[in-house]
Amino acid sequence: MTQTRVRRGRPGHSLDTLLVVAVAVFNERGYDATSMEELAARLGVTKSAIYHHVPSKVELLRLALDRALDALFAVTEEPAAVTGRAIDRLEHVVRGSVRVLAAELPFVTLLLRVRGNSAVEEAALARRRDFDRIVTDLVRSAEEEGDVRPDVDPAVTSRLLFGTVNSLTEWFRPGGALSADALADALVATTFEGLRARP
Amino acid sequence: MTQTRVRRGRPGHSLDTLLVVAVAVFNERGYDATSMEELAARLGVTKSAIYHHVPSKVELLRLALDRALDALFAVTEEPAAVTGRAIDRLEHVVRGSVRVLAAELPFVTLLLRVRGNSAVEEAALARRRDFDRIVTDLVRSAEEEGDVRPDVDPAVTSRLLFGTVNSLTEWFRPGGALSADALADALVATTFEGLRARP
Repeated sequence: MTQTRVRRGRPGHSLDTLLVVAVAVFNERGYDATSMEELAARLGVTKSAIYHHVPSKVELLRLALDRALDALFAVTEEPAAVTGRAIDRLEHVVRGSVRVLAAELPFVTLLLRVRGNSAVEEAALARRRDFDRIVTDLVRSAEEEGDVRPDVDPAVTSRLLFGTVNSLTEWFRPGGALSADALADALVATTFEGLRARP
Repeated sequence: MTQTRVRRGRPGHSLDTLLVVAVAVFNERGYDATSMEELAARLGVTKSAIYHHVPSKVELLRLALDRALDALFAVTEEPAAVTGRAIDRLEHVVRGSVRVLAAELPFVTLLLRVRGNSAVEEAALARRRDFDRIVTDLVRSAEEEGDVRPDVDPAVTSRLLFGTVNSLTEWFRPGGALSADALADALVATTFEGLRARP
């Protein structure tokens, strides 16, 4: 029994472990350039051990992209994202997105690199557009409520805002001196209030 | 004479044209995955026509990365970037970077994808770090002059700010409804003053 548990924890023995390793290799070498042989070698298992969990490489991609997207959409459905003033709901979604990005960094990194090379990638891009629409609608509502500056198009404001959030994948590394919460504070302070000191 | 001029204008007949096509293919397929055969085919010339201009594929990469980097460093040496209050110099560098990004979009896109896989890529990353240091120093000086909020680390502020600028490569397309100048205005307004409306 004990031995079974230990073996279950070894690389390649759970779908979760398989996904984590697959995403690391996809991010390192590119999804298209990665073969199932390489994934098997990296996991120290046979290809059939992988096919025990998933029917194809693209199914691994789909599961990985959905993990990032499901976490992001979950944020938009939290109570603080659906009730209250739009500016506060927007802040909640921004903080939640930073939290998801920090917690699921390799999965979000993979998501942001998707270019639509397959039906699975197209579906992920469509969900990203749905997410962007939610954010743009929040910015627009906040502008109508008088809380967001009216001189910038809400679509541009939301793109700039999530451009800032997404760019965190380029440099933020969890476990360093800067915590995810401190990062979210800094990002919300500079994007909502601006980097210029108030008199 | 007329015919000679026409032929000089054809793809593959100048180093500039060669670079533009090479960068487009590198961005599309990845630098490592692109062969000189493919570049020659895309240009409709022989490989030796390419070798007439450059000794190797990596030299094309070096020229392309330097074109983006030289343009960015030129901004930091303009009079408005070296004299006056630091906050104004910072704004000048941000506006200039947006201008360079819009004017040299494929070159800046390529630069931002470099991961250090060769000496040429390492050199480009080192120049990017030098650029980041100039920006961070400007943010720090502006904070010392009381113009930038003191509650966020200048290194974090400058990373967030240029994360926003760099993220433009993901969605901004020159020639659309939004001009590069209007984009720079929107970016400076939201990052310097914040997206929140001032009372």
